Amino acid sequence: MKLSELGEFGLINLIHGTIDKLKNPQQSAWQQLLLGIGDDAAAWQGDNLIQLATTDTLVQDIHFDLNFITWDELGWKALAVNLSDIAAMGGIPKYALLSLALPAEIEVESISRFTTSMAHLAAEYGVAIAGGNIAGSPNIVITITVLGYLRGETMLKRSTASPGEQVAITGYLGLSAAALEMFHKKISLDTETTTILRKGHAQPVPKVKEAQILVQHGVKTAIDISDGLIADLTHICEASKVSAEIQIDRVPVHPLVKAHFPDYQELALHGGEDYELLFTASKTVTGQVSRALDCPVTVIGNIKEESPPQRVNLVDNEGNVIPYNKRGWEHFKNGISNAKLT
Amino acid sequence: MKLSELGEFGLINLIHGTIDKLKNPQQSAWQQLLLGIGDDAAAWQGDNLIQLATTDTLVQDIHFDLNFITWDELGWKALAVNLSDIAAMGGIPKYALLSLALPAEIEVESISRFTTSMAHLAAEYGVAIAGGNIAGSPNIVITITVLGYLRGETMLKRSTASPGEQVAITGYLGLSAAALEMFHKKISLDTETTTILRKGHAQPVPKVKEAQILVQHGVKTAIDISDGLIADLTHICEASKVSAEIQIDRVPVHPLVKAHFPDYQELALHGGEDYELLFTASKTVTGQVSRALDCPVTVIGNIKEESPPQRVNLVDNEGNVIPYNKRGWEHFKNGISNAKLT
Repeated sequence: MKLSELGEFGLINLIHGTIDKLKNPQQSAWQQLLLGIGDDAAAWQGDNLIQLATTDTLVQDIHFDLNFITWDELGWKALAVNLSDIAAMGGIPKYALLSLALPAEIEVESISRFTTSMAHLAAEYGVAIAGGNIAGSPNIVITITVLGYLRGETMLKRSTASPGEQVAITGYLGLSAAALEMFHKKISLDTETTTILRKGHAQPVPKVKEAQILVQHGVKTAIDISDGLIADLTHICEASKVSAEIQIDRVPVHPLVKAHFPDYQELALHGGEDYELLFTASKTVTGQVSRALDCPVTVIGNIKEESPPQRVNLVDNEGNVIPYNKRGWEHFKNGISNAKLT
Repeated sequence: MKLSELGEFGLINLIHGTIDKLKNPQQSAWQQLLLGIGDDAAAWQGDNLIQLATTDTLVQDIHFDLNFITWDELGWKALAVNLSDIAAMGGIPKYALLSLALPAEIEVESISRFTTSMAHLAAEYGVAIAGGNIAGSPNIVITITVLGYLRGETMLKRSTASPGEQVAITGYLGLSAAALEMFHKKISLDTETTTILRKGHAQPVPKVKEAQILVQHGVKTAIDISDGLIADLTHICEASKVSAEIQIDRVPVHPLVKAHFPDYQELALHGGEDYELLFTASKTVTGQVSRALDCPVTVIGNIKEESPPQRVNLVDNEGNVIPYNKRGWEHFKNGISNAKLT
């Protein structure tokens, strides 16, 4: 069987299963491991604090297109998506390792811009770029690993959502996917809109501080939106063995996306790469979080008892179920792809 | 300027310089960082122990050729080279993250074999595979990150060699490069020789225990041989601001390499991927280490006062200097490549 037939989630299950079968639970590394494959980051008990580790790979022409993203933006984004994974665990990022696989014909100036931009973002988040690796390669492959820690004991997991909780989200959705549509379809928009869309796609802001506020208010369950709202909420539902109901009219589509893209709902539901925090909590807690955060927090639905196979149901404001095609980045099957083993 | 003109070491200097210029030394991550770019692994002060982190990337048809290595062997090797970097710091590996960038047409069975083999090696060394990432890609790119720690305060660095010390090496050199020559030139050898060569290339044994014994006997300076004896000794000389003199007749060429390959000296001096430990220490210490280790330890020369530009001098047994071409994997310039930023 080919990977294209097995698909991304099949592959994750295969790797996870193999590693689980062969692990030696008597070894201290396994005993201290709190969270292995299946969340935004791995977590283990350090000497004092809980340690977090995540890694993310960007492959040229799969995850980025140098026609649509500059090297400065790429340096930012490659680190930002990893910081976002640490944020989604409720953690503080601390060290980064940069692994660059590069063709020999690349301009040195490009790598200089990439590194400068990455270093600026790192400094902003208190992260030290501690090392890495460089290798020759026919195409550009960027892998960044970020190590972080938790301030306390609470980790934001995917597996702790309970029926009755609200589903809420920080900020607005759809900018990144709309930017890609703008680039691909050569849609001409005013300069300000173009800038905001481009920034949404190329320079996402990791929600590290926002996640800390979630933790402080007792939130236990969160994920960052990388694959798309529906796909990432499905990850939470699968890990928590619950279902979810989302009211489509409540989904916070970015106003500029709504104004300029007729398919705005599709972009907000399935677009991905928004790097907002999707979380579940009681009504009281979402209210508190909403007041404590500077950014908008929107309650978009509720967690329900498990009712597979459709984990996430979309409903209109009269409660009618709206069908949708399973989307999000199903790697290998639809060719565009990136999935966490952590 | 293109990367091919700048070369690997120019690129490392550029990245290192940029990161150094933009770092904020007031931030705790930078304050706790003990060793950044420029050694086998990064090191920082953890809550109790010193933590180590290293990452290494293998790119299809640059670092491995599926005509010459099986998926089982690749799973072993991809992890082993990282364990070797932790060993070369005097550390104990503990957690691994696996990042796989894969074409959709790969057989699932191949990935299953890769993961199984990697998990077996991990178990042997007490390492937990804690997570990672999978991504679609036109070619196979494997990046593994390994985290480890030091038992005490002594870290085996590249920058601590002193004039008067001996240069010593564990085991034998040349097997891996000889195996590649056997594959490429389709050299037919007896089954036992073929098996040993193949294993030397595809299943190197990380010298974690051996490095612990080095540390226990007071060795301070070591590197693992990945780029080649001359290239890696040059790394030590550059980092330590010293020179070295090697007696060519003392270089421990593997007997099978000597027996079957007329260019055995070239293979042992420049071949690389031996993953033996190259270290410097006083005569007393190398003697003690030699008695304490199960594997052979060969003193091959001495550290001298700095005399650039030729950092490493090769001499015959009458002390005559033997010229050699600068070799080893100078990435981008000669197309085959892998260099540590850590």
